Amino acid sequence: MKKKSKLPRDPLSVQLRRGDLMAAQCPSREILKHMTSRWGVLVLIALQGRTHRFGELRRIIGGVSERMLAQTLQWLENDGLVNRVALNVVPPHVEYSLTPLGQEAAEKVAALADWIETRLPSILASQRDGA
Amino acid sequence: MKKKSKLPRDPLSVQLRRGDLMAAQCPSREILKHMTSRWGVLVLIALQGRTHRFGELRRIIGGVSERMLAQTLQWLENDGLVNRVALNVVPPHVEYSLTPLGQEAAEKVAALADWIETRLPSILASQRDGA
Repeated sequence: MKKKSKLPRDPLSVQLRRGDLMAAQCPSREILKHMTSRWGVLVLIALQGRTHRFGELRRIIGGVSERMLAQTLQWLENDGLVNRVALNVVPPHVEYSLTPLGQEAAEKVAALADWIETRLPSILASQRDGA
Repeated sequence: MKKKSKLPRDPLSVQLRRGDLMAAQCPSREILKHMTSRWGVLVLIALQGRTHRFGELRRIIGGVSERMLAQTLQWLENDGLVNRVALNVVPPHVEYSLTPLGQEAAEKVAALADWIETRLPSILASQRDGA
C-alpha cells in the first residue's frame, strides 16, 4: 500500500481479515516497516510502560537525529501505536506514550531486542568463526 | 561497529557480556538491522523449520529482488543465523536453512509478524480514525 492512500479499496472485512506479510501488496508490509525501522524498535521499547518527552527520547536512544526521531514518532502515531499529547503551556511541552495497541507491539519488539542483546556474544562468535 | 571490523577491540568478556541496543556503538545495532531489514524478517520466517532453495525463497517472498534476497541471505549467514549449503551438482543447487541460533531468531521475529498480521484490521482502523 502506498503511503498516500490509507484506505484499502475493498471492504476491510473482505480484504483484511488478517494481513499476509508474504504478499507484496499487503498493507501489513508498511506496518512492519515502521515497527522494525532503525528507530521504531528503540522508540517502542523506550516508551514501554513510560511517558517521555521528545528530548528525553533523544537522550535515551543513542545516535538518533531530531529529524529521524520525529519521523518515527509520526509513523507510530499514524499507525495508532503512539499517543502524542501537546500540553498548552509555555515553553511547549509534548509527551509521547504507547496506546494499548502500541503496548502490545512493544512487547513483541522487546522480546526480539532482548534476544539480540542476550545472544550477542554467540552471534559475534559465529561472525568470527565465519570470517 | 563498522561492517568491516568484525572483531570488538576489548575482550568479549569485558565488552559484551550483553548487548545494549540503546548505545549507538553497540554491535547489537548491526544484528538488529539485519534481522529487521525489509527482507530479513520474511527470510527468517520462510525458513522456519524448512530448507529452501534460492528460487523457492524468491517465489515465497512477494516482491523481493534477486539482489536484495542475496544480500539479506549473506547478512544472515554472516551473523550465524542461516546455513548455506552448495551441493556439487550440475546445474548448481544451493540450499538455505536456519542454524539453531537462527531458529531462535525466527521465533521472535515470527511472533512479531503474527501480531502484525492479526492486528492489521485494528491498526488500519486507527489509521482511518486519525486521518
